[in-house]
Amino acid sequence: MPATPNKQVIFAKIPTGYPVPGEHLKVEESTIDLDAPLPEGSFLLKLLDLSVDPYMRGRMRDPSVKSYSPAFPLGKPMTGDTMNVVIKSNNPNFKEGDLVYGKTGCGVFSEYVVIPKEMEPYFELRNEPKETGLPLSNYVGVLGMPGMTAYVGLLKFGAPKKGETLYVSAASGAVGQLVGQIGKTLGLYVVGSAGSDDKVEYLKEIGFDDAFNYKNVDNLTKKLGEVCPKGIDIYFENVGGQMLEAVINNMNQFGRIVACGMISQYNREKPEGIHNLMQVVAKRLRIEGFIVGDSQELKEPFRKDMTQWLLDGKIKYKETIANGIDQTPQAMADVLHGKNFGKQVVKVADL
Amino acid sequence: MPATPNKQVIFAKIPTGYPVPGEHLKVEESTIDLDAPLPEGSFLLKLLDLSVDPYMRGRMRDPSVKSYSPAFPLGKPMTGDTMNVVIKSNNPNFKEGDLVYGKTGCGVFSEYVVIPKEMEPYFELRNEPKETGLPLSNYVGVLGMPGMTAYVGLLKFGAPKKGETLYVSAASGAVGQLVGQIGKTLGLYVVGSAGSDDKVEYLKEIGFDDAFNYKNVDNLTKKLGEVCPKGIDIYFENVGGQMLEAVINNMNQFGRIVACGMISQYNREKPEGIHNLMQVVAKRLRIEGFIVGDSQELKEPFRKDMTQWLLDGKIKYKETIANGIDQTPQAMADVLHGKNFGKQVVKVADL
Repeated sequence: MPATPNKQVIFAKIPTGYPVPGEHLKVEESTIDLDAPLPEGSFLLKLLDLSVDPYMRGRMRDPSVKSYSPAFPLGKPMTGDTMNVVIKSNNPNFKEGDLVYGKTGCGVFSEYVVIPKEMEPYFELRNEPKETGLPLSNYVGVLGMPGMTAYVGLLKFGAPKKGETLYVSAASGAVGQLVGQIGKTLGLYVVGSAGSDDKVEYLKEIGFDDAFNYKNVDNLTKKLGEVCPKGIDIYFENVGGQMLEAVINNMNQFGRIVACGMISQYNREKPEGIHNLMQVVAKRLRIEGFIVGDSQELKEPFRKDMTQWLLDGKIKYKETIANGIDQTPQAMADVLHGKNFGKQVVKVADL
Repeated sequence: MPATPNKQVIFAKIPTGYPVPGEHLKVEESTIDLDAPLPEGSFLLKLLDLSVDPYMRGRMRDPSVKSYSPAFPLGKPMTGDTMNVVIKSNNPNFKEGDLVYGKTGCGVFSEYVVIPKEMEPYFELRNEPKETGLPLSNYVGVLGMPGMTAYVGLLKFGAPKKGETLYVSAASGAVGQLVGQIGKTLGLYVVGSAGSDDKVEYLKEIGFDDAFNYKNVDNLTKKLGEVCPKGIDIYFENVGGQMLEAVINNMNQFGRIVACGMISQYNREKPEGIHNLMQVVAKRLRIEGFIVGDSQELKEPFRKDMTQWLLDGKIKYKETIANGIDQTPQAMADVLHGKNFGKQVVKVADL
């Protein structure tokens, strides 16, 4: 019974502010017998790439607090979106060598894991990279949950009309960079903000009409008025707080605020207040929150469109890839502090 | 040239907090020659009933501040929704004895007024009360702008489904009492809040499933949890501030917040902050502001339905009627302080 080392990312302690690598999130090593017989219907996965995303901060909570995404159990491996390869199987739907997507936050952050039959619905064959030649990491990003979030959020909830102004915060992130580029394909005037001059430069490179570093701005309301001279028709909301308030001041009548996340608030014990919601009435604004998992009807159109856009070079996608599962806690902290540039992925192993 | 006394309600000074009768809003008397010849296309109206509504606070502002409804010009008569009778006319569309609705906030708060031809589009024949027998005051309330606001807000923006829970704040007001009763006709569980025990009693009389006096409540979030045991699916928002925050804490997934007004904030120099908008994402809430004037396609269905509901006794409508144009400034202040009970109307003259 040969024991193979098997590292896992463990949720060790509930954070109150930012999670600290090594304290709240830890990598621990156990062992696994890769030769052990598999129960019927189960299959053995080797983890290749994993995704760390801002929404995961919401899962690092006391499980008695209800939310849309389940709390991480303490002392257990974290879960999220993953790409894996089947190395052994007792399930006819998953064959050795198949590439498998661990979806809806259910991929296990463990170098090796046996998936029992009852968990099968949370795993999906994704052998496309063998044909498209696109990097495996794309399949947890631009072609995975973050990509579909951008697509669904802008097309379904933003109700974009050619010539309108779209403003995206956290615009160089996993979702934001795609929202802006999809917006350009639709003929929108696209403005983004990010937290460093490098990121701003990148946004302009990939086609944003204008972009600014919010850290250099004293008066956000005034700045948004300057960079969006016709006002804002669609705001793709990723950050919340003061940014949201400044955007509301600059929204046009009948504007749409697509609420995808509010990362500036996730690690605050007391969130910032929004004082200008009266404008929602006067300007007839719509603020709508969404979770990508509710829009499965758009999964196939999204995958088809986005794959084609990538292959045609119409959409570019920047990733920051950390090497090795050991880097996961730090990569997670980096995302929450905004230190990543583009989509943060952890590469665990080669195919 | 006999001079008839003609009292008018004048916007005398821009208030910073609550408007004070006699200071910001004044009644002044001038004279009018009722026998003077009328220019072609114009007509002379005698004012019968006028409506004072919370949104009018927004018009008492510096005209350099833009908003959906124009600022009142200083030193001029205020305008709003009115019912009038034509006493002389040089316009074939408006005949002596016709009842005329001064709509979209353009009826003039003057005992007598000559309407020039170019203002004709803001006046509309409403001779129906001669047939329905319903009181004229209904035509600036339940059958006018406030009634249509309730109808449009709940049906078009609330997207109600039988069995859902509807919560209405300022529920005994001109709009709220109707929202709740329309909700009952649709099979909703309807809960309302108001600012006195009498008002709460009235809400229960007209069919609200539950109601409470918000002034007696320490913890609004907890109270709403008690009175809406299945959570809130639709919130008809009339007040804003702390109430909105408490409602968000109690909203169900995919809930709709129909933002009609935020009266608790109109007279504050610094509005209250809303700290829990993160729940908009987690619960996929939709917050949508609306102005009734944008939904003219529903005017005829609204008038037909509401007239029938009133004649059938399915909908009851409470009004507070002040007698005489002199009472208008005080009636306006009462509305903003929440002292009125039901729709506030000023009866200026008998037909």
